[in-house]
Amino acid sequence: MQGKKTSESRTVMADIVLPPDTNYHGTIFGGNVMAYIDKVASITAMRHCRRQVVTASSDSLDFLSPIHTGEAILLEGYVSWTHNTSMEIYVKVEAENLLTGERRLTSQAYLTFVALDDNGKPANVPPILPETEEERWNYKTAAGRFEIRNRRRSIAKERRKQ
Amino acid sequence: MQGKKTSESRTVMADIVLPPDTNYHGTIFGGNVMAYIDKVASITAMRHCRRQVVTASSDSLDFLSPIHTGEAILLEGYVSWTHNTSMEIYVKVEAENLLTGERRLTSQAYLTFVALDDNGKPANVPPILPETEEERWNYKTAAGRFEIRNRRRSIAKERRKQ
Amino acid sequence: MQGKKTSESRTVMADIVLPPDTNYHGTIFGGNVMAYIDKVASITAMRHCRRQVVTASSDSLDFLSPIHTGEAILLEGYVSWTHNTSMEIYVKVEAENLLTGERRLTSQAYLTFVALDDNGKPANVPPILPETEEERWNYKTAAGRFEIRNRRRSIAKERRKQ
Amino acid sequence: MQGKKTSESRTVMADIVLPPDTNYHGTIFGGNVMAYIDKVASITAMRHCRRQVVTASSDSLDFLSPIHTGEAILLEGYVSWTHNTSMEIYVKVEAENLLTGERRLTSQAYLTFVALDDNGKPANVPPILPETEEERWNYKTAAGRFEIRNRRRSIAKERRKQ
Amino acid sequence: MQGKKTSESRTVMADIVLPPDTNYHGTIFGGNVMAYIDKVASITAMRHCRRQVVTASSDSLDFLSPIHTGEAILLEGYVSWTHNTSMEIYVKVEAENLLTGERRLTSQAYLTFVALDDNGKPANVPPILPETEEERWNYKTAAGRFEIRNRRRSIAKERRKQ
Amino acid sequence: MQGKKTSESRTVMADIVLPPDTNYHGTIFGGNVMAYIDKVASITAMRHCRRQVVTASSDSLDFLSPIHTGEAILLEGYVSWTHNTSMEIYVKVEAENLLTGERRLTSQAYLTFVALDDNGKPANVPPILPETEEERWNYKTAAGRFEIRNRRRSIAKERRKQ
Repeated sequence: MQGKKTSESRTVMADIVLPPDTNYHGTIFGGNVMAYIDKVASITAMRHCRRQVVTASSDSLDFLSPIHTGEAILLEGYVSWTHNTSMEIYVKVEAENLLTGERRLTSQAYLTFVALDDNGKPANVPPILPETEEERWNYKTAAGRFEIRNRRRSIAKERRKQ
Repeated sequence: MQGKKTSESRTVMADIVLPPDTNYHGTIFGGNVMAYIDKVASITAMRHCRRQVVTASSDSLDFLSPIHTGEAILLEGYVSWTHNTSMEIYVKVEAENLLTGERRLTSQAYLTFVALDDNGKPANVPPILPETEEERWNYKTAAGRFEIRNRRRSIAKERRKQ
Repeated sequence: MQGKKTSESRTVMADIVLPPDTNYHGTIFGGNVMAYIDKVASITAMRHCRRQVVTASSDSLDFLSPIHTGEAILLEGYVSWTHNTSMEIYVKVEAENLLTGERRLTSQAYLTFVALDDNGKPANVPPILPETEEERWNYKTAAGRFEIRNRRRSIAKERRKQ
Repeated sequence: MQGKKTSESRTVMADIVLPPDTNYHGTIFGGNVMAYIDKVASITAMRHCRRQVVTASSDSLDFLSPIHTGEAILLEGYVSWTHNTSMEIYVKVEAENLLTGERRLTSQAYLTFVALDDNGKPANVPPILPETEEERWNYKTAAGRFEIRNRRRSIAKERRKQ
Repeated sequence: MQGKKTSESRTVMADIVLPPDTNYHGTIFGGNVMAYIDKVASITAMRHCRRQVVTASSDSLDFLSPIHTGEAILLEGYVSWTHNTSMEIYVKVEAENLLTGERRLTSQAYLTFVALDDNGKPANVPPILPETEEERWNYKTAAGRFEIRNRRRSIAKERRKQ
Repeated sequence: MQGKKTSESRTVMADIVLPPDTNYHGTIFGGNVMAYIDKVASITAMRHCRRQVVTASSDSLDFLSPIHTGEAILLEGYVSWTHNTSMEIYVKVEAENLLTGERRLTSQAYLTFVALDDNGKPANVPPILPETEEERWNYKTAAGRFEIRNRRRSIAKERRKQ
């Protein structure tokens, strides 16, 4: 299977944070940020493999700074690694104060998606070819994150047996 | 007031079309496409003038091709012209079949926004500096569209007096 | 095909503007008004031809006055003209201050819908029989708007070829 | 306080039933019908008293027939009775098959609203002047429904003390 | 058919009231409370009969106290009575001030659901076995409410004939 | 500060998965599950500290099994650990087939929330007193998860400096 470049599936989304997305203090709910991240990551994953996909896992997420009503939320996702039938997607979330132009990083996420064939069974995906410095860093460190995820799942399985 | 380049406010949004956005035939409602266009155009306008804005008008819109459930809707907006306190924003809408990568133009829109100062009064905006061939074409032809809008408003006013 | 009166398909909708429909200044987004207009126009068009329909175009729209949170938005749509397989729908939008009863015109729209047969192909629609003074004015002037739309589409096509 | 006619506050709303409003069988949830009824009744009540209002109670509701995806839901509300600071609003719900024009009654509701002054305290409302045969029937029988509501509340109060 | 205990289908839901659910005074719309009640009651009914269900009716509802933005809405539903193919579901609604822990009763509802077999025809449901004092009280008094509903429906039918 | 038991803040929510929450295959989006988790965890955290809270982080999440349209999603959250101004909330997500009663674990999550005083500054929270075997296991292992989160944040910080 031939490799594909990150630029072929990179996905960008800008939206305005509105009152229904926010809590009593006028800042966006963590859960809504997660939903945006999953949406952008889904489009990225489908663009890379040109198949239906399902979310298999989301790595830990820090919410570094609240996003307020009236600010823009900016998301950018790209494929950071692939492994047989799964893709690791990296999503960066920034807030933009639309009146000043000031931007700040609010979250970074790694999600894992599995590609599905027409019978809903896992299907192999093309390898990813990273292009920028940051993309290569994410690619190089992906095997380590993959291992941590596997260990985490083993611990959870064992615990459920107890 | 110093001019600003189109690239400083260009806004891009990708989203997936879901069942609640669609009619009985599984294609997106025209009204939902309009709402997406207004959102992208609002962010673009605020980025250009760094002020609150209101939609003053939307030019005619053709829906060239339906967008189906499961496809991505892609929007891109930039400032095509400015005039004292108002900005003309051009928005291009495309559909992307996420399983094939095929893209097609579905709509093009020109919206007019007015910038507001802190008292809600119209405020002057920086001139726009077009950069690409397409942007320069849109800039060059903007005065013609402006005139048509003015004529349209005069006719509507007269009619209301009758 | 026998004609049908405007009163047979006229559609009326009243709704309250709530915080999620509004921007930072508490006034409804232009895009949401467009979505309401498309919904009312769709019901009107289906009532006239008793078929599935799709939005083909929306003429220019002016937003004459903002609508605030807590006010009612009132829409009224009727068929203003028909032409083979297409219907022109006129929609009037008013705001009502529910505490004073004061009403004001905020937008007027002309949308074009195409009727679809069971295979999704354009289907002829009954002619419209206007009843009131206003409806006859809209009927009489429809051919002019139709021509403007055709010219607009030709220009857009030519431009895309360049 | 001078009386007002039912026609001065009558409120009409037409909407299309979409997939997100429906259950697994493609028919609208009872709870969504209730939410529509409350919205139409709220506008009706505010139009009669030109004040903020709160829902005090909803009488029993029968769902006589399911409404399907793609059908229109039609609601019509008017003030059926007033009593000091409260208004009884009658709402009729019909379904319309947009492809055939066939309409059927699906629900009838009586809701009670209380008018509020600027301090959020109950405020007197104008008497209602019924105009049609049906409106007069609803007016004549309102005192009986009022009594049943009072009895119901007494029983509920007693029970809570036990 | 063997009876089932109320604890086998009891359903509990906690949610936060957000701005889009509320009116101008920041209190939840009556219609939204009704929609929550119908949802909890639907799950309860399906859990009891393990079939698809439809809402047949909702008894009168009093809104004893407003619920404010930022407060939690707490719902609890259980089967209070069964009769051939229908189930009466009792739902209690409370508000919780999340900053103080104070709770207050805001509504109580009795809804009737009908179980459907695979052809959409009414299907018999298992008898309910009440467990607590309150559940037995609701069970004992259910026949009376059933009779009132029947009488109400007869009156409505007669009236429609007039 | 006096400790509080897990049972004092435990939060339970049942909801039905509807078409708008799902993708093309009729299974719920990962992002929507995340939003449910954040909501239940927020209520749990506010109930424990009786203060406003913000989401600080979400640990890794596995989606073990898809949840389908028409199934119920069941969430249960409790405070698993506290540390000065922060609370670790554990949320378990299950799917229930409402027609068979079969339930399966679909996700487990650990989120960290920070309590805020009236000036929006971090405020100390009461210690948690675990009650069941599972709660004690989660409590005992929390310091290890805390350490992993700290290490993760250091790595992210370092990386951003590069």
